[in-house]
Amino acid sequence: MNILLHGPVARRGAGLLRDHFGDRIGLIEVEDGDAPDLVARKFATADVIVSVGYGKDMPPAPKARLLQLPNSGLDDLDPGAVPAGCAVCNCFEHEIGIGEYVMAALLHWTVGLAAADARFKSGDWTDSPRLFAGFRPELAGKTVATVGYGNIGRAVAARARAFGMAVHAVTRRPRDFEPAPDWLGGIDQLDDMLPNADFVVVCCPLTAATTGIIDARRLGLMTTSAVLINVGRGPLVDEDALFAACRDRVIAGAVIDVWYGYATVGNEDVPPSRHPFHSLDNVVMTPHLSGWTDGLMPRRFAVIIDNIERLADGRPLRHQVHPG
Amino acid sequence: MNILLHGPVARRGAGLLRDHFGDRIGLIEVEDGDAPDLVARKFATADVIVSVGYGKDMPPAPKARLLQLPNSGLDDLDPGAVPAGCAVCNCFEHEIGIGEYVMAALLHWTVGLAAADARFKSGDWTDSPRLFAGFRPELAGKTVATVGYGNIGRAVAARARAFGMAVHAVTRRPRDFEPAPDWLGGIDQLDDMLPNADFVVVCCPLTAATTGIIDARRLGLMTTSAVLINVGRGPLVDEDALFAACRDRVIAGAVIDVWYGYATVGNEDVPPSRHPFHSLDNVVMTPHLSGWTDGLMPRRFAVIIDNIERLADGRPLRHQVHPG
Repeated sequence: MNILLHGPVARRGAGLLRDHFGDRIGLIEVEDGDAPDLVARKFATADVIVSVGYGKDMPPAPKARLLQLPNSGLDDLDPGAVPAGCAVCNCFEHEIGIGEYVMAALLHWTVGLAAADARFKSGDWTDSPRLFAGFRPELAGKTVATVGYGNIGRAVAARARAFGMAVHAVTRRPRDFEPAPDWLGGIDQLDDMLPNADFVVVCCPLTAATTGIIDARRLGLMTTSAVLINVGRGPLVDEDALFAACRDRVIAGAVIDVWYGYATVGNEDVPPSRHPFHSLDNVVMTPHLSGWTDGLMPRRFAVIIDNIERLADGRPLRHQVHPG
Repeated sequence: MNILLHGPVARRGAGLLRDHFGDRIGLIEVEDGDAPDLVARKFATADVIVSVGYGKDMPPAPKARLLQLPNSGLDDLDPGAVPAGCAVCNCFEHEIGIGEYVMAALLHWTVGLAAADARFKSGDWTDSPRLFAGFRPELAGKTVATVGYGNIGRAVAARARAFGMAVHAVTRRPRDFEPAPDWLGGIDQLDDMLPNADFVVVCCPLTAATTGIIDARRLGLMTTSAVLINVGRGPLVDEDALFAACRDRVIAGAVIDVWYGYATVGNEDVPPSRHPFHSLDNVVMTPHLSGWTDGLMPRRFAVIIDNIERLADGRPLRHQVHPG
């Protein structure tokens, strides 16, 4: 069985696949410098393709029976381009890293450890409550609201609960969840949720229906002390509206991990937005790293290895998002 | 009944006491500029003293029946100086703030949000895992070990658990705790705990027996990837040994909130240590702010008000640490 690894994310799993399967599989990597006809030959021999996406610009893969995404988002997948008879599966496992990132964001906002460290290292006791300082806010008693309540929303909820926070959520299909939020609504109740949130975490899939789901009107429904955290996809939040809301303090600020433009290998000078978010002191910005922990690839490739073995044995695949 | 507020911490509660009791009490504040004889007259009339400590250098308080500490630490209390017939009570309520601070410290260390923000704001995509970066560590699966398992240790444990961390603890008197640590030992088993910890949180009371409990030998029992977090009292950790262990990377680093020297009002030029901890890039340092949240004083003065009412009614006092 030939496993094709396409793109830098997929290629990160080469060692894990080799360690597991040894010479029971053929492992083919699409290299950055490969000529188009070599890439085409590699796709032509693939039984399994591991790739974050598949589009009409990619070579045919007539033998492929499984397109395994080493990630969850389907935004780089063109379902119409998927080879006939090829199942598509995604995987998760990033919710641990993203859950930790979101809590880091909330605590960065309230505890302000890095800023206090910098001031105290300069010999300044200003933050000492014994002398001068005010009191910082607590997470306890505050409300975190998640737009989407999938793996990420629930990972945030489990952690936020331990801090004594209330958890509110909207989701496309409200049902019994573990952990259950304190308040749960349909996505059509988003307007009801926003005014009551201290922190709004955007973590739903990007689809035609969710593009720009947080727009200027909805940012205006948040309180001026509320913080937006986007760990979903950049375009879930309207770019112009988010910049204006942060700049004009319509909201207190934002922690943004997902963007409107991305650097790629060899093209590293791409700004993440057409707006200068970097000039705003109430914005924390990171380059889409929230889920990327040292536990991620081992967990994801354990799922991928399991799916390859299921395919080989004719057993049902896990996390199938598109029929084969 | 006359309530005397002594020191800046106690004075912060003046408004809360006034709001609750109105003119049912006499509220007396010792002001920074008060002459010694005025201070002495104020102490002489006090039925209740609210003060973080009491020593032989303080005026007699013959009428005092309750010395109420607006904090938990007994290190500023000289039991031999307490007026005859005066009960001493302390209070807690800082475990929420300190628990949040400790988790902020763990996440600051692993997620590195502030550093990633600074790099990305300069236009640098280095931290993007899609391009160049390695993977950051997770808290999930790691071990946090607390030296002491009182209110603070348990607040850390409850939060760390939600992150999938293991919790180890030593305490003077091991017993059934909620939450129960995954491993619990007596304080004499500290040496067994240290080698297995990713994070060591020092949060026991400072006494003659615990002064320097973390010394050079015990820092050497920690792994080189482990981080020490001190939210107890500075002298629980040997000052010279901690500086050397951080400088020489015997341990990965430290997050230090409690110190060996303190600035006071009018004397703000006091260094926190005789060593230049501020010169070490693997040390995060804050000026004893971990517990100081906006929820602290309302919760503490609710306890203090309750104790004043208990004293007035002749009911048993709460959190009594010294007989009256």
